[in-house]
Amino acid sequence: MTISNAALIAIDWGTTNRRGYLLDGSGNIQESLEDTLGILAVPAAGFEDALESFVAKWRHADGSRPPVLMSGMVGSRQGWIEAPYALCPARAGDLAASVMRVPTLEDTWIVPGICLNDDRRDVMRGEEVQIFGALELTSRTSATICLPGTHSKWAQVEDARLIDFATAMTGEMFEIMCTHSILNALMNKDAAHDGDAFRRGLEKSASTGGLLNHMFSVRADGLFGVTGAEQQSSYLSGVLIGNEIRELAGAFHQTAEPVLLVGAVGLARIYNTAFDYLGIACESVDGELATVKGLAAIWSEIARA
Amino acid sequence: MTISNAALIAIDWGTTNRRGYLLDGSGNIQESLEDTLGILAVPAAGFEDALESFVAKWRHADGSRPPVLMSGMVGSRQGWIEAPYALCPARAGDLAASVMRVPTLEDTWIVPGICLNDDRRDVMRGEEVQIFGALELTSRTSATICLPGTHSKWAQVEDARLIDFATAMTGEMFEIMCTHSILNALMNKDAAHDGDAFRRGLEKSASTGGLLNHMFSVRADGLFGVTGAEQQSSYLSGVLIGNEIRELAGAFHQTAEPVLLVGAVGLARIYNTAFDYLGIACESVDGELATVKGLAAIWSEIARA
Repeated sequence: MTISNAALIAIDWGTTNRRGYLLDGSGNIQESLEDTLGILAVPAAGFEDALESFVAKWRHADGSRPPVLMSGMVGSRQGWIEAPYALCPARAGDLAASVMRVPTLEDTWIVPGICLNDDRRDVMRGEEVQIFGALELTSRTSATICLPGTHSKWAQVEDARLIDFATAMTGEMFEIMCTHSILNALMNKDAAHDGDAFRRGLEKSASTGGLLNHMFSVRADGLFGVTGAEQQSSYLSGVLIGNEIRELAGAFHQTAEPVLLVGAVGLARIYNTAFDYLGIACESVDGELATVKGLAAIWSEIARA
Repeated sequence: MTISNAALIAIDWGTTNRRGYLLDGSGNIQESLEDTLGILAVPAAGFEDALESFVAKWRHADGSRPPVLMSGMVGSRQGWIEAPYALCPARAGDLAASVMRVPTLEDTWIVPGICLNDDRRDVMRGEEVQIFGALELTSRTSATICLPGTHSKWAQVEDARLIDFATAMTGEMFEIMCTHSILNALMNKDAAHDGDAFRRGLEKSASTGGLLNHMFSVRADGLFGVTGAEQQSSYLSGVLIGNEIRELAGAFHQTAEPVLLVGAVGLARIYNTAFDYLGIACESVDGELATVKGLAAIWSEIARA
């Protein structure tokens, strides 16, 4: 293809990095770009330059460029322009209807996050695009979706509509326990992933006592030499991910249909092991591809409107 | 009484402070002392001087002093002399039988902690003395005992024998979440205790989703203004203490007998509110008095042997 065929530049602009994709009219990736200019690295007045230099190579000969649709923290209060959350329940069309145009640029849009404001409150920003992308990629209209990460999201979709979701602080909890808690004292937190220790952590997550107790078993087992310094971070990871999946699959997943597991390859592989161990069927969907397909799907809705 | 009647100097020597008590032959407190010379503030070779200067005012005219019995982190690897853990199940007599004598001093002893090394592993050091003291103070021989703190302990006693226990990292988790997690961003962590917010946290702890999700509700509710900056630490405290009590009362407390709640006044009052809210009967026992009675009871066992 030539640049003139390009239909859309899709950008996932997060806290610490960004990825850009040049898409054709069918939503297929023609070229991609990635750098570490996340929103924290861009001064408040610098977003316009940061965008245009990122996509400069995708300009047409006349200097114009394809439309840009962005998702992620670029639309947060700390980002370029705050795109107010769309309200759950929501379809892809609801996101399309509430995209925020960057007022100083032509054809440049930010997808809002989604919030829940009911008997529970919760928020997501970026994952909503991956959710609708994962549905496209699997041709499903109903699913329980798990998006692991610093703040893992669990979502429930029925009839192509996101009807509920919840956040678990799994990744952040892992980081701060390894770095700031007493567990740090006996642990080599940079050790390689240890599958056996991880599975023992998953098993622990089924026992009585709850997470506050399960986490102390990292230390107690360390004191007794049952879990060595090299195994403790994997064991802790198993305890945390096991608690997350047991609790949130329990809350959201009432069918035998596989959970859609949407994430980057490394983390998805670890979660996949956990789902298998816990006897919950899951189907992995590449997180990056889900973002692209989701942005393309939302763009189609915008074009249709 | 005169110093010459004194039977024992009981010392609770912890990580950041120490308390000494001059006891008569019936275990009653005649005088007490307190300072901030916890084990972290004493150089490895300085413990003998640190002890003798602490109790100098309780010397007899001939320069001798009553025997000293100590408990707490002074007997840990980071303390004066490591007193190896006694094994659970254990009676007060088992602690008496395994007290560690300080070899360079006459009549100076350290009570060991207790460990569990079974299908689960766990450790305590200091709380074991409070457990046996609480039994003395309440004339009970069977009880579920909750000792809230940085690392809360839950213990089960039958026939005056500690048969099982578990640790929950409740206090440490509260501190590190307030200080090092994203929850810090919207929170005034030094705000006064707010009873309503605390009870909302207790209520949250009953909901689906588990602790990793409940903790994120601190932030989500903060974003929506449901929980203000001044209320968030109390709400988080309710979430954590609610999870601790629900999980560990579930594991340990199978009777209608009141749980013995052993702790310092401020924390015990907060836990008392939580027990009331959760409909679990509890009886408060002063933690300091429990230490003194426990050390006196162990000393009687030593004297009897």
